[in-house]
Amino acid sequence: MKTGFVGLGKMGLNMVENLLDHGHDVVVYDLSSAQVLQAVQKGAVGASSLKDLADTGLIWMMVPAGAPVDATIDELLPILKAGDIIIDGGNSNYHDTVRRALRVQGAGMHYLDVGTSGGLEGARNGACMMIGGSSEIVDRLDELFRDMCVPGGYGYVGPNGAGHFAKMVHNGVEYGMMQAIGEGFDILESAPFTFDHHAVAGIWSNGSVIRGWLMDLVAAAFEKDGALDYLSGEIADSGEGRWTIDAALDQGVSIPVIANALFRRYRSRSHDNFSDKVVAALRHEFGGHGFTPKS
Amino acid sequence: MKTGFVGLGKMGLNMVENLLDHGHDVVVYDLSSAQVLQAVQKGAVGASSLKDLADTGLIWMMVPAGAPVDATIDELLPILKAGDIIIDGGNSNYHDTVRRALRVQGAGMHYLDVGTSGGLEGARNGACMMIGGSSEIVDRLDELFRDMCVPGGYGYVGPNGAGHFAKMVHNGVEYGMMQAIGEGFDILESAPFTFDHHAVAGIWSNGSVIRGWLMDLVAAAFEKDGALDYLSGEIADSGEGRWTIDAALDQGVSIPVIANALFRRYRSRSHDNFSDKVVAALRHEFGGHGFTPKS
Amino acid sequence: MKTGFVGLGKMGLNMVENLLDHGHDVVVYDLSSAQVLQAVQKGAVGASSLKDLADTGLIWMMVPAGAPVDATIDELLPILKAGDIIIDGGNSNYHDTVRRALRVQGAGMHYLDVGTSGGLEGARNGACMMIGGSSEIVDRLDELFRDMCVPGGYGYVGPNGAGHFAKMVHNGVEYGMMQAIGEGFDILESAPFTFDHHAVAGIWSNGSVIRGWLMDLVAAAFEKDGALDYLSGEIADSGEGRWTIDAALDQGVSIPVIANALFRRYRSRSHDNFSDKVVAALRHEFGGHGFTPKS
Amino acid sequence: MKTGFVGLGKMGLNMVENLLDHGHDVVVYDLSSAQVLQAVQKGAVGASSLKDLADTGLIWMMVPAGAPVDATIDELLPILKAGDIIIDGGNSNYHDTVRRALRVQGAGMHYLDVGTSGGLEGARNGACMMIGGSSEIVDRLDELFRDMCVPGGYGYVGPNGAGHFAKMVHNGVEYGMMQAIGEGFDILESAPFTFDHHAVAGIWSNGSVIRGWLMDLVAAAFEKDGALDYLSGEIADSGEGRWTIDAALDQGVSIPVIANALFRRYRSRSHDNFSDKVVAALRHEFGGHGFTPKS
Repeated sequence: MKTGFVGLGKMGLNMVENLLDHGHDVVVYDLSSAQVLQAVQKGAVGASSLKDLADTGLIWMMVPAGAPVDATIDELLPILKAGDIIIDGGNSNYHDTVRRALRVQGAGMHYLDVGTSGGLEGARNGACMMIGGSSEIVDRLDELFRDMCVPGGYGYVGPNGAGHFAKMVHNGVEYGMMQAIGEGFDILESAPFTFDHHAVAGIWSNGSVIRGWLMDLVAAAFEKDGALDYLSGEIADSGEGRWTIDAALDQGVSIPVIANALFRRYRSRSHDNFSDKVVAALRHEFGGHGFTPKS
Repeated sequence: MKTGFVGLGKMGLNMVENLLDHGHDVVVYDLSSAQVLQAVQKGAVGASSLKDLADTGLIWMMVPAGAPVDATIDELLPILKAGDIIIDGGNSNYHDTVRRALRVQGAGMHYLDVGTSGGLEGARNGACMMIGGSSEIVDRLDELFRDMCVPGGYGYVGPNGAGHFAKMVHNGVEYGMMQAIGEGFDILESAPFTFDHHAVAGIWSNGSVIRGWLMDLVAAAFEKDGALDYLSGEIADSGEGRWTIDAALDQGVSIPVIANALFRRYRSRSHDNFSDKVVAALRHEFGGHGFTPKS
Repeated sequence: MKTGFVGLGKMGLNMVENLLDHGHDVVVYDLSSAQVLQAVQKGAVGASSLKDLADTGLIWMMVPAGAPVDATIDELLPILKAGDIIIDGGNSNYHDTVRRALRVQGAGMHYLDVGTSGGLEGARNGACMMIGGSSEIVDRLDELFRDMCVPGGYGYVGPNGAGHFAKMVHNGVEYGMMQAIGEGFDILESAPFTFDHHAVAGIWSNGSVIRGWLMDLVAAAFEKDGALDYLSGEIADSGEGRWTIDAALDQGVSIPVIANALFRRYRSRSHDNFSDKVVAALRHEFGGHGFTPKS
Repeated sequence: MKTGFVGLGKMGLNMVENLLDHGHDVVVYDLSSAQVLQAVQKGAVGASSLKDLADTGLIWMMVPAGAPVDATIDELLPILKAGDIIIDGGNSNYHDTVRRALRVQGAGMHYLDVGTSGGLEGARNGACMMIGGSSEIVDRLDELFRDMCVPGGYGYVGPNGAGHFAKMVHNGVEYGMMQAIGEGFDILESAPFTFDHHAVAGIWSNGSVIRGWLMDLVAAAFEKDGALDYLSGEIADSGEGRWTIDAALDQGVSIPVIANALFRRYRSRSHDNFSDKVVAALRHEFGGHGFTPKS
């Protein structure tokens, strides 16, 4: 299938390579010509502007969430023709997606939101995709999704916005699961027994109730360094966790585990945390308890 | 390998069947002769008392945690001989395991604690086992563990107690992961989109970051009934979650996600929760806010 | 001080009465003439439209957060004159306040946001007020605030929005404190001892570290009924808790306790909770554990 | 009332001074003669051994929880006579208290457990006491409790153990309330407005819903230093929080807020937290996300 692909970051490049493996014609564009060159070396047709992609009639955007998506749509609308398809495969907020879909449809084109999971490995060898939009268009592109995903790993989940909503919730669940795993190894680390984290992660990866890709990745991480001494404990977050909590607040859903997982990430980046200082000061005030002076 | 097997509940029967499949000679005993009969029909040798198992020199206990384990050991010690091996494959508390191991070793026998995961399916077709005790004994029984587990899914993790400790933490992680999954579907359930939970769970099971056995099981549950209307939301808990929190309290480890997962289980079984009533009453007192009268 | 007062709900009426006690001239308006009549009977001057309040040059709005505040400002701007003062004493979202302050100032008038705490009793006998806006205007109205508040219980906290922001955080803290208290009595309720909740709350109200108005109110609630049998455990929430979490999400602040307090409120209103059903179903799938059938 | 007082730490000395103010005869003992001397200078009768206290027939222990309490009882039992009274005013675990009460009663004496709250100021000027034991004995000592406590701030709460149980829960509630307050000021600290924490705490201390002694103490702490720069954010914990969670685990009570408050204390003392490192490593593995290298 002839596809125009915009956005050649780590995820985008891997997805393009996967498409090429499956025999698709891919015309690629990125603000960085170096990234375009990389894709061309893999077999893609390079473009020097979005205009060169218009003929494909099918544009896959894999650009950073937020303003870049709107900017890309701004450029695409005047150069696409009625009936063409724009796909947002990135991590957009579903509210934005609903708004953009209306705009694109108002201009006579189709819009799909595709929440993409599976990490870099999935992008390269078979991802997981939750697709929102018109089910008819999704059916029409079935070959494309089938080639980009593992068997069973994609599907229509609802109208525009539903794809990104499902991806958002997926990431919220991911936050909770990762934090649960982290806590488990923290208990092992300070246990009355000396555990080999790599060995335990390996055992848990095979046959246990908690086996899965995350456990495989933990095993891989511990294989490099059982003490994880190469990194600090500062955990970044990219927005999807916050949006999940926003959605839960809007909908009145109780999500203590997902929320606490995000709050631990915030805490991990807060040194000499002010909340903790207030509590320590309070203890000192009422009980004459000592405190740890600032170092 | 000739093995005496005590405890033919759902897990035990499945494990015996798996052992028989792999050509082991299994002599089985259970307080319920009906259970013994079931195992005999699969090819095991039935026993009418623990004494009939003594000759095997290797006793695998799969009995409920707590008093039944001690009672079984009470009976076994006088009838076993020095060098024989007792294995506790159940969900014992690791403190009990440490105590029992000392007792068994004091009587001249060996003791292994084997934390077993993988559910009924794993017990039947290949489980996951975290093994505590003497690594020499573990090596000697390698064939047994290899036949009972999936490849890579077992291993020595430390001295006596470490196997059950690792299993306890495994279950704590499981609590957190299950709660994260539950919260995710709760958000989907009340979302501004109408999701087909079975379809989403299926997609997430293939290629996503959160894929794994738990997600497969969610998909299986939703296949039966996408609204889960056949059950109530009361969640039982079997002790391992509490022990995980106990351990974290002892060790000074911060585990908000695992603890909140257990607390949600407690909450699920508390109707007309008293804490909630106190808060509702407080709101009424200070603000003159209305309240929902007791129905 | 001559004051126009809009909004005669429970809080508003009590505040008007307090102002009258302190010798202020209060012209009152409410959409409900019955409410106006009530205030008139206490000594206020009744108005049949907002226009009758314009002469006071000082308008105190005590109307429900959201559209009613904007609607009131819509009506006020054309009838007020440059230099007049509009005060929003309600529970507005601080984002709205910032927007409204700019609008009011653009029209030549002053705007203060006054976060008001202390419940109905405080409104009547002395409240607590966090004031945002111009400190000069706050100083000019010092007599008004002094008469409406307990000694020490009011003050300028920053530019427009800061007053409502501080009130929002106050309510977030309140959520956490109330939940902590609720949990404490829940532990007492199921303790191995039989506690008289009213007696305990009374003791804790006098001399303990956790004494304060909330504990006084708990004691008052238990005085009516030690089992709180007159109400159900459904806890409402009015928005300020959600906004507090929104702010923390925006600012990257870790607030597990405030967030969990809100999530427990959500949970209290969710019967046959879907998240809990998913977890119960999962347990059944992997372990063959039984479940509680839907009643 | 003639009273023997054992344990002259910060709390004990203040309580003795308070007793002396109220005209009680107090014979004091402490392992440190320097502490005895301090009490003597206030008007107490100094003792060089526990034997000198036996004649009072009423012994108030204010010694560290755990072994020191048992050691003191060991010494007291042989030198007291039937009908004498031993009071444990410290922070003992209620399980220990139940055991000790049986022992003391077996020796013919009475035992009261008195959970004492109110900090150093309360100990000096009027504390709060939750009393477990025989209500008859509590009545007999009413004068003593009345003089040591603020009006309304003491009372019989149940049989032996109930006093310390109530104090334990009090401290659990205290953890939750302190954490809620800490989180509130953390949101203010990073708010889009610049708040004067001391000013806000002062306002909240007067007339607000969340007013109380803890808020007074926060105001006092911020008066010294609005940035709390004199201390680090490491928060100690003394055991009562853990016991509260233990009790909730035993009783099946859902206490997310109290538990999260303790977990934040644990986290505050964990530098380069292992759980956080695992999560950061996981992010890196699946997404190729960068990480913060160990500094």
